[in-house]
Amino acid sequence: MGGFFGVVSKDDCVADLFYGTDYHSHLGTSRGGMVVRIKEGFKRNIHDITNTPFRTKFGEDLPKYHGRMGLGVISDYEDQPLLVGSHHGRYAIVTIGRADNLDELAEACLSRDSTHFSELKGNEFNQTEVVAALINQQETLVDGLRHVHEKVKGSCSVLLLTDHAMYASRDRLGRTPIVLGRKDGAVAVTSETCALPNLDYEVARELGPAEIVKVTPDGVEQLSPPGEKMQICSFLWIYYGYPASNYEGINVEGARNRCGAALARADDVEVDYVAGIPDSGVGHAIGYASEAGVPYRRPFVKYTPTWPRSFMPQEQRVRDLVARMKLIPIREQIDGKRLLFCEDSIVRGTQLKDVIQRLFDFGAKEVHMRPACPPLVCSCKFLNFSRSRSELDLAGRKAISEIEGEGPADVTEYANPRTEAYSAMVERIRQRLGLTSLRYQTLGAMVEAIGIPRDKLCTYCWTGESLYEDE
Amino acid sequence: MGGFFGVVSKDDCVADLFYGTDYHSHLGTSRGGMVVRIKEGFKRNIHDITNTPFRTKFGEDLPKYHGRMGLGVISDYEDQPLLVGSHHGRYAIVTIGRADNLDELAEACLSRDSTHFSELKGNEFNQTEVVAALINQQETLVDGLRHVHEKVKGSCSVLLLTDHAMYASRDRLGRTPIVLGRKDGAVAVTSETCALPNLDYEVARELGPAEIVKVTPDGVEQLSPPGEKMQICSFLWIYYGYPASNYEGINVEGARNRCGAALARADDVEVDYVAGIPDSGVGHAIGYASEAGVPYRRPFVKYTPTWPRSFMPQEQRVRDLVARMKLIPIREQIDGKRLLFCEDSIVRGTQLKDVIQRLFDFGAKEVHMRPACPPLVCSCKFLNFSRSRSELDLAGRKAISEIEGEGPADVTEYANPRTEAYSAMVERIRQRLGLTSLRYQTLGAMVEAIGIPRDKLCTYCWTGESLYEDE
Amino acid sequence: MGGFFGVVSKDDCVADLFYGTDYHSHLGTSRGGMVVRIKEGFKRNIHDITNTPFRTKFGEDLPKYHGRMGLGVISDYEDQPLLVGSHHGRYAIVTIGRADNLDELAEACLSRDSTHFSELKGNEFNQTEVVAALINQQETLVDGLRHVHEKVKGSCSVLLLTDHAMYASRDRLGRTPIVLGRKDGAVAVTSETCALPNLDYEVARELGPAEIVKVTPDGVEQLSPPGEKMQICSFLWIYYGYPASNYEGINVEGARNRCGAALARADDVEVDYVAGIPDSGVGHAIGYASEAGVPYRRPFVKYTPTWPRSFMPQEQRVRDLVARMKLIPIREQIDGKRLLFCEDSIVRGTQLKDVIQRLFDFGAKEVHMRPACPPLVCSCKFLNFSRSRSELDLAGRKAISEIEGEGPADVTEYANPRTEAYSAMVERIRQRLGLTSLRYQTLGAMVEAIGIPRDKLCTYCWTGESLYEDE
Amino acid sequence: MGGFFGVVSKDDCVADLFYGTDYHSHLGTSRGGMVVRIKEGFKRNIHDITNTPFRTKFGEDLPKYHGRMGLGVISDYEDQPLLVGSHHGRYAIVTIGRADNLDELAEACLSRDSTHFSELKGNEFNQTEVVAALINQQETLVDGLRHVHEKVKGSCSVLLLTDHAMYASRDRLGRTPIVLGRKDGAVAVTSETCALPNLDYEVARELGPAEIVKVTPDGVEQLSPPGEKMQICSFLWIYYGYPASNYEGINVEGARNRCGAALARADDVEVDYVAGIPDSGVGHAIGYASEAGVPYRRPFVKYTPTWPRSFMPQEQRVRDLVARMKLIPIREQIDGKRLLFCEDSIVRGTQLKDVIQRLFDFGAKEVHMRPACPPLVCSCKFLNFSRSRSELDLAGRKAISEIEGEGPADVTEYANPRTEAYSAMVERIRQRLGLTSLRYQTLGAMVEAIGIPRDKLCTYCWTGESLYEDE
Repeated sequence: MGGFFGVVSKDDCVADLFYGTDYHSHLGTSRGGMVVRIKEGFKRNIHDITNTPFRTKFGEDLPKYHGRMGLGVISDYEDQPLLVGSHHGRYAIVTIGRADNLDELAEACLSRDSTHFSELKGNEFNQTEVVAALINQQETLVDGLRHVHEKVKGSCSVLLLTDHAMYASRDRLGRTPIVLGRKDGAVAVTSETCALPNLDYEVARELGPAEIVKVTPDGVEQLSPPGEKMQICSFLWIYYGYPASNYEGINVEGARNRCGAALARADDVEVDYVAGIPDSGVGHAIGYASEAGVPYRRPFVKYTPTWPRSFMPQEQRVRDLVARMKLIPIREQIDGKRLLFCEDSIVRGTQLKDVIQRLFDFGAKEVHMRPACPPLVCSCKFLNFSRSRSELDLAGRKAISEIEGEGPADVTEYANPRTEAYSAMVERIRQRLGLTSLRYQTLGAMVEAIGIPRDKLCTYCWTGESLYEDE
Repeated sequence: MGGFFGVVSKDDCVADLFYGTDYHSHLGTSRGGMVVRIKEGFKRNIHDITNTPFRTKFGEDLPKYHGRMGLGVISDYEDQPLLVGSHHGRYAIVTIGRADNLDELAEACLSRDSTHFSELKGNEFNQTEVVAALINQQETLVDGLRHVHEKVKGSCSVLLLTDHAMYASRDRLGRTPIVLGRKDGAVAVTSETCALPNLDYEVARELGPAEIVKVTPDGVEQLSPPGEKMQICSFLWIYYGYPASNYEGINVEGARNRCGAALARADDVEVDYVAGIPDSGVGHAIGYASEAGVPYRRPFVKYTPTWPRSFMPQEQRVRDLVARMKLIPIREQIDGKRLLFCEDSIVRGTQLKDVIQRLFDFGAKEVHMRPACPPLVCSCKFLNFSRSRSELDLAGRKAISEIEGEGPADVTEYANPRTEAYSAMVERIRQRLGLTSLRYQTLGAMVEAIGIPRDKLCTYCWTGESLYEDE
Repeated sequence: MGGFFGVVSKDDCVADLFYGTDYHSHLGTSRGGMVVRIKEGFKRNIHDITNTPFRTKFGEDLPKYHGRMGLGVISDYEDQPLLVGSHHGRYAIVTIGRADNLDELAEACLSRDSTHFSELKGNEFNQTEVVAALINQQETLVDGLRHVHEKVKGSCSVLLLTDHAMYASRDRLGRTPIVLGRKDGAVAVTSETCALPNLDYEVARELGPAEIVKVTPDGVEQLSPPGEKMQICSFLWIYYGYPASNYEGINVEGARNRCGAALARADDVEVDYVAGIPDSGVGHAIGYASEAGVPYRRPFVKYTPTWPRSFMPQEQRVRDLVARMKLIPIREQIDGKRLLFCEDSIVRGTQLKDVIQRLFDFGAKEVHMRPACPPLVCSCKFLNFSRSRSELDLAGRKAISEIEGEGPADVTEYANPRTEAYSAMVERIRQRLGLTSLRYQTLGAMVEAIGIPRDKLCTYCWTGESLYEDE
Repeated sequence: MGGFFGVVSKDDCVADLFYGTDYHSHLGTSRGGMVVRIKEGFKRNIHDITNTPFRTKFGEDLPKYHGRMGLGVISDYEDQPLLVGSHHGRYAIVTIGRADNLDELAEACLSRDSTHFSELKGNEFNQTEVVAALINQQETLVDGLRHVHEKVKGSCSVLLLTDHAMYASRDRLGRTPIVLGRKDGAVAVTSETCALPNLDYEVARELGPAEIVKVTPDGVEQLSPPGEKMQICSFLWIYYGYPASNYEGINVEGARNRCGAALARADDVEVDYVAGIPDSGVGHAIGYASEAGVPYRRPFVKYTPTWPRSFMPQEQRVRDLVARMKLIPIREQIDGKRLLFCEDSIVRGTQLKDVIQRLFDFGAKEVHMRPACPPLVCSCKFLNFSRSRSELDLAGRKAISEIEGEGPADVTEYANPRTEAYSAMVERIRQRLGLTSLRYQTLGAMVEAIGIPRDKLCTYCWTGESLYEDE
């Protein structure tokens, strides 16, 4: 995923920039970057945050930064921000989202323009550099940012800092959020609203899909109006957004509580305790427990002091190790108990299978699982949060291939909970995971729990259908 | 506080040692250390863990370690483990607890023995080096460890590694725990049982107060039997122990749940949500909520990705900044709501006051506070977990001085919840914190919730009374 | 300055690449870089070498590199090598020399092509990125490299690595050298021949001015023939080349010995000892001493263990501190002695003045100075070795302005040693430095000592005249 | 070896301390340490200097130090300085030299005193800690320092800093030097006088053997007078002292020049060039060349920029690599030439053999070697500069065993240049090294060149005889 945070202020913006960016650390595990407009140009640093978090890495650089405008980024892949010299002058730029047609875009630039890309990593183009090239193909920055909307398939939100102003451009269908925060003398532009309250910013408003604004110390100017179509990612609420964040005005924790409550209403199982798989299952479980009137408990406690992050490293082996080490079981809350767990979603299920086995090893009498969303049947191609995962590894897809045999399957039927195909798929998953019972949320209930119209939500992962043809 | 972890194994012990020690990271923020018995002697490293956690700092050293016995420590003050040459031969040593008479012990060594201390830091003696000197004053290691029991006021548990065996000695009155874990071919010695399950160790047994054992690959030998008197620290369950740990066979999370339930039974306030101040208030709040049948919610979410640790840095300014930054409010779960918070305890109350103010700023209608233990009136002199805090800064003591005026006060009356003095003190604290209501746990209810006999628990913080004269 | 080193080998090239690049460390103090063609593309690292030398910084990365082709660079300014994606495909590139018209070239690219530059540092363009843009404006790499010859004013030698071959292009007038070394199964391309013998390479041949070659494991192919005009920098022999290097087949140490001998032949002063200002004065002094039959001595010894580098940091304050600290006087070889010092050249003379004063402080009876070249009257605009020095700070220019007063002076007369103007200038410099006597080398004698035709040597610093109009 | 530097000043001493200690970097490659008396006690740092020199490692810490007294050390083995708590109070301490009976001393302390040592490294005692224990066995610091003279076999000079003063104690027979430097308001205590001039100190005087002084801001007080016997190490002048240093008032470079001159006077070979094996052969060669009237040249140039240090790392493999890489041959000064090299001494000769072979590979017609001292036949047991080398590996000893066969040999005859045994040994060495001719300095000529009475110089390496029975 990744996330960005920018500040335009009448005073020094560095402390806000530092803490504001840090509050996006749950969105990435690879690179952190910061740039500030200083007297002599731009001061930039990029650090590897694989083993040491943003706050520690950048804390040392902090005293060297002074300036009134700056932007920061937590990045899962690219080195960012880039400093770009162009016919627009010099600017710093970060991007969030995924250009599905990145190579194609890059090659087109190279053949057309005798331009070059100098931020390669191994053999891969740097998405932000390619986006910069697209921007530079137009006369003005705004036209350039619109050009990005036209050309990029997938999603691409941009934050761009010139000598005099900051430009924010939300991706065409609003799959990722951009929020404006305001306090006296300063404006913040953020991916996560949870970055705002502790820095004393109020949410001013969210950008609409494809909206472009220019932020200066004097205020926010709309350069391009929002589009009407929206396909914001449902997973922001279900899984990777921070509980204290809001998108489209809707708080994550609240949505999760409602999701859990919906699961409870559709359920009739008798259990001793309700629990959540940390971190994102917790909000769902709390909602379930209070709706069902069953005690909420923590049979697993996460060891946060040194395993703080929940968004996973790219390497599967490390991911599995982290998964095992970070959760510590409490025998007293497991042994002899009928346990119901809420989980955000079941992706591959491998780690979950391990967790379930350990629960039985520690004496659990029953283990029931209630994912907060329907079975995943398609990999996301609009954002890069599951970039390294193969579609066929999805627990749902795996069950489908077992049922259907080799070859491409029509997933439509499996996406419909009223079919036998769906029941067979869920039963296979239940068996594979060794669960006492498994009941998924329905798409309708999930959409209702989130609370915005279904046609504004991207639900591709569960249906394999895009609302708009050009994707 | 600090905590230690040792392994004696028939195979390489390094991975267990590394992860086992890491699971003590919540107990200290200053130094981490590890030593392994290698072929040529001992291989040791000590790192500063102020800004980068044990796991990151030691992960880099790991490939260089190979051996079958080793010990690790998370230390709040001293550089540890020390490698000591003595008439006992060479050994590695760590200590946990606080020698209240450290300077006196050191000076006695220096005057008696023409010995020296070479691990000074600024002007302070290294407690572990002084303890080593005490051990070396006796003929045998066991006599030396007993000598530590006799001489040290406060508490001092020791883990000691020679060329051939590991020695574990629990402090005289068992204020800090030592637990033996066992798996096939290996024995672990740990401060926290939460370090065991993920490494596949079972709890074998806990050492009794003043008990000394010798651990070799062939088994555990008792060198000195446990004493009868015990004064284990109640705060292990209330505050600083990890939820997944057990002491004297009693799980922390369970004790907290019972504490919360006891608070609920004694309560009659009507609220919308019950919540806990993270991290240690959470277990109490969950217990309260399910006993009271009121929804448990998270109006504050802790930003764990980069503010992982709850045990506080020594410097007050940093502590306050961390306190503010790590909790993010969720307006939707605060605005217009009647909230009841459980908290482990109120120490000085300064950060809490800030938190309460922010709740009202975000629209809370009522804020009720329910600490899981009685008002603190005395500073601990047996462990160093509150070493940097002055007794007169305690919220309870401050209220007492306001009532009584200057001069030393008799705290006995204030420790009795049935007195008017007590009520006056609590009311002053409530007013200072700006709470809608404040009701403390009683000592009896807390002791019952923990679940071991009152004469085995140290309750000095709340009563100012020690059970045993020689302290 | 800077220098580069490339290897194309039938076996792993990494050790050669590492040591070969390291042998260019005397040419730069800012950045070191290395790139190797690995299976998956290019593996690159760039490190700051301001405080820690190339060898230490890259030694740690070394085990991660494996490949048969690679290039390395010691760079005084830019981050290099760059990895460039272009219509030529992907390549790595480094440049040496100075594009005097860098900004102009960059702006032309930006206006013409809607290209961009993403390697800005503060406000400055990265020369290597701009050169890459020039290369990409042409159909083929060779045309691109020729295009660089046409467009760049100053000098620009290029080393470029594609997936299949290495390209080397010497600057148009051959101001900087490129040498091909060969051993069984491998070809090296180097700025300094001193990198070759310890790695068992023999000098195969030097590229001529503007010559372009392509190097593959199978051999060297000439893509563009050498030009006839040459203006190789005289200072390579006089000052910044390493004593063990050859350019145009002529060894540096030998040239310095001859320079010194020429100074001796033109001299008649009686002294006790001849000495050199380390490092580059030493070769001249040895030549002087053996020609004059006067003992060579070391009244100053350089403290190499921690002040190893002779090429100076950019910051003047640090440069002055280094200058003072690195030379330790030996009273026994100074006190009461008549000393003659050879020096490569006198640039500003500030540090030299200090050195001379210290000699008198330590008891020197006489101090005579013999620079190995004529007085500098113009700043180099073809290479960047004096980039941070103002022309008017040159000792010669300062003397001229004192004589002539304000306003631009005609330096021609001052460049002619047979004029009174010249004598007056030298006398002023002598007085300012507090020397007993000062006698410069003549241009003719210097050219003769170097040993190649005068019209092939750039002597702009001493004459202010370029041989070729288009510069 | 190692070396130390201390300052007592009326103003802040930190800059002097830093640079002064740095000027001892040629004496050690393992550990650097610094301690300053600050307000709250002592501030100390110890860094690994294996790959990064003292100046770089400590430069970062520098701003944190402020104080008027401090000491620094370059150490080849131990972590130093130690901070010691004792009945003398607290002090910092460093030692130079070698306690040949270290283990024995340590065990004696342990058995007598129930003391301990807590600075073990692997299995080895820290010499400085053991010395501190000896000091602490006496009533006063002076008695303690005298006690060190009595107990330590080998040599041990001490620098010790209390809250109020610095104590310096030269080893019993003055094998290592201690010099007092003075400037306005400050006194320095140094191993190497070359540390003084650039910091504006004048040499005040040298301590005599076993002399002990106390240095305060008010002056230097003699606590124990010098002994009459002296055995200062001859190798200070021949090999490891810095050219700019003086010991017993005699400058190193001057002594080397005289050594070379003596070699020339005893020689009749005809050669084209005289050269020195860098670094320590250079002073000898300069002396030879000017006495013989033969040109001094540099057929090998040392690559100082990244191979700055001449004192060798402990590991032989690294030592050999460094030896090869750091010297670059110049074919022009080798090919077809008759070369004579001066070298400080031939230890094992393995690297030298390699160097000689390379000279012939580069076309040398003849290679003559002239070591500045006689053949080494015994390993030093008084200092640790050859600690890792076996006596039987010495080139001389190897030749002797080849001649004599197995079993212990009487080296007396071989130490006498007038015997046939000596000639046979030298001839064998010459053949092994592949030299055209080999002629060693005589002991008498060497002693004369140094210039102090033979009975004050330790010549054990060449004779196997100690002047004083108790060693």
